Amino acid sequence: MSGIRCVKLASVTATARPAPTRGARRRAQTRAQLLDAARRLFARQGVDATAIAEITDEADVGFGSFYNHFASKDEIVEIALDESLEAQAKIVDALTADLEDPAEIVAVAHRYFVNEVQRDPILGWLLVRLDVSHRVMTRALGERARRDLEDGVASGRFSVADPGVAFLDTAGALLLVMRAVLDGELGAEADRCHAEGVLRVLGLAPEDAAEVARRPLPSSAAPNRARAS
Amino acid sequence: MSGIRCVKLASVTATARPAPTRGARRRAQTRAQLLDAARRLFARQGVDATAIAEITDEADVGFGSFYNHFASKDEIVEIALDESLEAQAKIVDALTADLEDPAEIVAVAHRYFVNEVQRDPILGWLLVRLDVSHRVMTRALGERARRDLEDGVASGRFSVADPGVAFLDTAGALLLVMRAVLDGELGAEADRCHAEGVLRVLGLAPEDAAEVARRPLPSSAAPNRARAS
Repeated sequence: MSGIRCVKLASVTATARPAPTRGARRRAQTRAQLLDAARRLFARQGVDATAIAEITDEADVGFGSFYNHFASKDEIVEIALDESLEAQAKIVDALTADLEDPAEIVAVAHRYFVNEVQRDPILGWLLVRLDVSHRVMTRALGERARRDLEDGVASGRFSVADPGVAFLDTAGALLLVMRAVLDGELGAEADRCHAEGVLRVLGLAPEDAAEVARRPLPSSAAPNRARAS
Repeated sequence: MSGIRCVKLASVTATARPAPTRGARRRAQTRAQLLDAARRLFARQGVDATAIAEITDEADVGFGSFYNHFASKDEIVEIALDESLEAQAKIVDALTADLEDPAEIVAVAHRYFVNEVQRDPILGWLLVRLDVSHRVMTRALGERARRDLEDGVASGRFSVADPGVAFLDTAGALLLVMRAVLDGELGAEADRCHAEGVLRVLGLAPEDAAEVARRPLPSSAAPNRARAS
């Protein structure tokens, strides 16, 4: 999976340009079919276990046409995941845009993902099966999570021995909880109990963590409104 | 991977019986070569991405002879991991046998695994790549971790909103920290910082968690002495 670091983002962006002619529209449609098929397969069986031939079978297109759209499996992984994760990250940004307590921002983000994997299991399996050190995951979700953590430390709301380890502790906790939710092993309060644990890691006293983790979730009336950045 | 639940443990144990004749000794040697090869491959590339043909190539034995020893890939996964994880679990039992503080027992266990993946990266990769809900992982390490957590709750030392979620939070945290250690991303204090986060999840006040996580590790002078059970 290390080869993915070599994908040139310029060529990636170029293939996503709007299609002006009928041939180009058909081309864009095939590309979208391949991306959808890839997402479903990655979610179902993991990225490593998915072969290009399975993606073209699932998309119902010829094997060779894969290479008209993507240079390699690594490239389709990168594009398929980047779009999904970026969309999720924008929703969380919108949900937390009006919050001022760094602890509540972290709690809402964690509760969002714990609940979202139930609403959208394909995304959920994609998240938990994705190699956690994959740079798409790191960029789309990890950077935001680290920023929220650092904001909380800077404001004195959080206190941790090592921010890097605290980030890994909370991210790993989220992954395993999402996994258990997908397996149907946890009840409806899982999002709150998990957020409480995360806030404890970040240094909140247990009573404080419990109170913040149990605040009503902010309205998702405008989930597509991204935080101004 | 669901088929693994169908492996009959009786037949598994039978193939591990000591070999009395020369033919049987050779047979036992081939079986051990296949198990070693499988462990290395699982560690290097994950269980899902490893084919039986790769295991026989790596072990330098014929493809067909695999089936003289194992009924399926699932069966060799089960046996290869069970032996490794059981051995690790016994070492942790020995290290913590003389400890009375449930918090220190949990801290030592977590610190052991964070440090062990540096000493034995093959085991480390095996642990972090293994599907976390795999029943071998659950049985060998999960049951002990849940027991330690429940002991701490029963004695009043720990306080959690939901023991199931707390277990997942701490186990997921450990997996991601081990992963980062394998990637060379964390410093020498990672085991203590991680243990501190885990103890916070379990309800210890930050100062208390820091003190317990920084106690000297118990001597590993007798690492093979398992706790009497």
